[in-house]
Amino acid sequence: MTNFVRMKVSVFRKARFNAAHRLYRKEWSDEKNLEIFGGCSHPNYHGHNYDLIVELKGEVDPLTGFVYDLGKLKEIIDAEIIERFDHRNLNLDTQDFKELNPTAENIAVVIWNLLRPKIEIKFDLAVTLYETERNFVRYEGE
Amino acid sequence: MTNFVRMKVSVFRKARFNAAHRLYRKEWSDEKNLEIFGGCSHPNYHGHNYDLIVELKGEVDPLTGFVYDLGKLKEIIDAEIIERFDHRNLNLDTQDFKELNPTAENIAVVIWNLLRPKIEIKFDLAVTLYETERNFVRYEGE
Amino acid sequence: MTNFVRMKVSVFRKARFNAAHRLYRKEWSDEKNLEIFGGCSHPNYHGHNYDLIVELKGEVDPLTGFVYDLGKLKEIIDAEIIERFDHRNLNLDTQDFKELNPTAENIAVVIWNLLRPKIEIKFDLAVTLYETERNFVRYEGE
Amino acid sequence: MTNFVRMKVSVFRKARFNAAHRLYRKEWSDEKNLEIFGGCSHPNYHGHNYDLIVELKGEVDPLTGFVYDLGKLKEIIDAEIIERFDHRNLNLDTQDFKELNPTAENIAVVIWNLLRPKIEIKFDLAVTLYETERNFVRYEGE
Amino acid sequence: MTNFVRMKVSVFRKARFNAAHRLYRKEWSDEKNLEIFGGCSHPNYHGHNYDLIVELKGEVDPLTGFVYDLGKLKEIIDAEIIERFDHRNLNLDTQDFKELNPTAENIAVVIWNLLRPKIEIKFDLAVTLYETERNFVRYEGE
Amino acid sequence: MTNFVRMKVSVFRKARFNAAHRLYRKEWSDEKNLEIFGGCSHPNYHGHNYDLIVELKGEVDPLTGFVYDLGKLKEIIDAEIIERFDHRNLNLDTQDFKELNPTAENIAVVIWNLLRPKIEIKFDLAVTLYETERNFVRYEGE
Repeated sequence: MTNFVRMKVSVFRKARFNAAHRLYRKEWSDEKNLEIFGGCSHPNYHGHNYDLIVELKGEVDPLTGFVYDLGKLKEIIDAEIIERFDHRNLNLDTQDFKELNPTAENIAVVIWNLLRPKIEIKFDLAVTLYETERNFVRYEGE
Repeated sequence: MTNFVRMKVSVFRKARFNAAHRLYRKEWSDEKNLEIFGGCSHPNYHGHNYDLIVELKGEVDPLTGFVYDLGKLKEIIDAEIIERFDHRNLNLDTQDFKELNPTAENIAVVIWNLLRPKIEIKFDLAVTLYETERNFVRYEGE
Repeated sequence: MTNFVRMKVSVFRKARFNAAHRLYRKEWSDEKNLEIFGGCSHPNYHGHNYDLIVELKGEVDPLTGFVYDLGKLKEIIDAEIIERFDHRNLNLDTQDFKELNPTAENIAVVIWNLLRPKIEIKFDLAVTLYETERNFVRYEGE
Repeated sequence: MTNFVRMKVSVFRKARFNAAHRLYRKEWSDEKNLEIFGGCSHPNYHGHNYDLIVELKGEVDPLTGFVYDLGKLKEIIDAEIIERFDHRNLNLDTQDFKELNPTAENIAVVIWNLLRPKIEIKFDLAVTLYETERNFVRYEGE
Repeated sequence: MTNFVRMKVSVFRKARFNAAHRLYRKEWSDEKNLEIFGGCSHPNYHGHNYDLIVELKGEVDPLTGFVYDLGKLKEIIDAEIIERFDHRNLNLDTQDFKELNPTAENIAVVIWNLLRPKIEIKFDLAVTLYETERNFVRYEGE
Repeated sequence: MTNFVRMKVSVFRKARFNAAHRLYRKEWSDEKNLEIFGGCSHPNYHGHNYDLIVELKGEVDPLTGFVYDLGKLKEIIDAEIIERFDHRNLNLDTQDFKELNPTAENIAVVIWNLLRPKIEIKFDLAVTLYETERNFVRYEGE
């Protein structure tokens, strides 16, 4: 199996959370917020089923055949992301979006920053976040 | 084509809306609401991408080959349901759920009641509503 | 296992075909066809990936545990439906839609009528046909 | 809300399990088993990701807006079905298929029989089981 | 939020169009066209539901939290691609495929070339096109 | 069409196989195998519907408009991968996993190594393998 030692494989784990949010800047008028953010700026919030895909790239461990234990990755995602955002209002219930607009882009960057310290640096990390089936984003830490 | 005149076919149209909601009874304590409704009772709302499937059953029109013009059905769904619920907070922004808990069951019944007067009575009407990929409901007007 | 003899179970087999079609009535003007059928009346045809689900309901055979051999059902669907419609122009290449508008409703009825003689009458037969993910129909032979 | 008291709604919960199985009758020769069951009779087993949809139909509780607490339904499915079948060999590891062929039909009937005593009789119960995306079955207890 | 200024995120928008097409070279015989293109060369066309995913990569705007307004991207895709190809015969109704075979590869390249002038050059552009769920292509402008 | 000669496009083909497997190291105790591999180490095997996506990247042939004939790619995948693994026990029925743990990572690497000699070297090759909808891997031959 020595020839497998240095192979690099990406592993992916999918998770989900349901949250409310609103896009707006408090220093802008309602009109300007509506113009820039459309229905997403409605004052009483709306929500989404967010689908999250976390990707790690690294060498296959020749002993286990794993790049990373996906059960352990699930626990990290649950503890750091799902606990934090599931069944929450992103604007009101989290510190992360007190000052930051909870766009899909920013949520993906926040998630990447939350996960990065929990995953050894030898693994490349990327995050794909689906706000809807038609709108999604990907952040690789660049 | 005479043999097609009396054939009954069901036609389905899928639509989507994104909304925030919260499940709770105001006369209950927070503890009781949490016990009954779990995370769905969080006070600041959460949200979903709702997938809606509207089904009409009726005879195929031998002239057009349609049971119902699905373009027209889309317009009815847009006007009656999507306009009303999309990017809204179901508890705060709608009359429908001022007193009624916005469970998937109740949302489906409300949608059915909103659509029924717009669809001629000769068509059977059913509504399937996905709150998540794993939790969904169906109401046939019984 | 005698208690399983009389159990009735529905079995489903999914298939696919890709075809071109056009909706119109030749005795109508282009304007009227456009008004009734919209873009579906464009003279040079358009097309779809049709998803077909065939459903049989019957008793479980206590010897095999099958209601119906789904491999055999696949062969029937391939021979009667896929061979006939896949990579074809429904209006020009088939006898079935020479005089009949190839709406999803009519295609489903035609498919049901093609399959019914091949499936023993003791099995209930139903056909669901997806023209797109958002528009689909179901025919149960009523 | 009195008009909602007697409404009947179906609620659905989706679950998953991954299992190995083999279709064969021990009193038949290998040739006959291969002829009847095809590759599904291979002696060393193969496997599937089974998708299970459990459906309950009943009246909406006017107090909660639920037909049935889907969290409680998830717990019942986990305890009765997932614990029993997930990451198991259906032929070797379960009592249910010691004498019964683990076809999708029979698995659905077994699951229905396992769930029925756990769900109050006032709820209609149906089970849909996907063996693959293309082959699936449904049992309503008839 | 300054630390978000230079983050690069990819944003994706999914769209759909239904079209007829035929693969063939007019200077080849029917036999040769059938040999090379199989059923895709049938003279009367067939069709597909094309799923299109457009991807832009760029810096997150710290003011809006957007890389690109996906509503604006939808409008560009509608105006440049959907208007042009939806409910059309790619061979007969478009200039783009008068001389060019409408393979998924070529359609993706054509779409990329149509979109590139509409999107500021600071954004990387990529196009993924699904002809069927099983056959798809991706073009990044290399 | 000369401007299309040097365009590089990726083409993707999706396939499926159903197989049983077990993760363990024979030199480890049952306890250690359970600790490392969880339910995946159950001695009597479990199984999955594996979804496989094979990706080739290369120049578009200006004559056909193809990067690669996807019908030919399907035949190669069928002959090299599906024949080998479908309806098999990966641990018992294949030489590939006699000594190698059939993790998704290792299966993807094995598939890549089986396909590489069948695909001309001018095409980049990548393999994505879904063990479940939530757990998947990708190998690009690095």
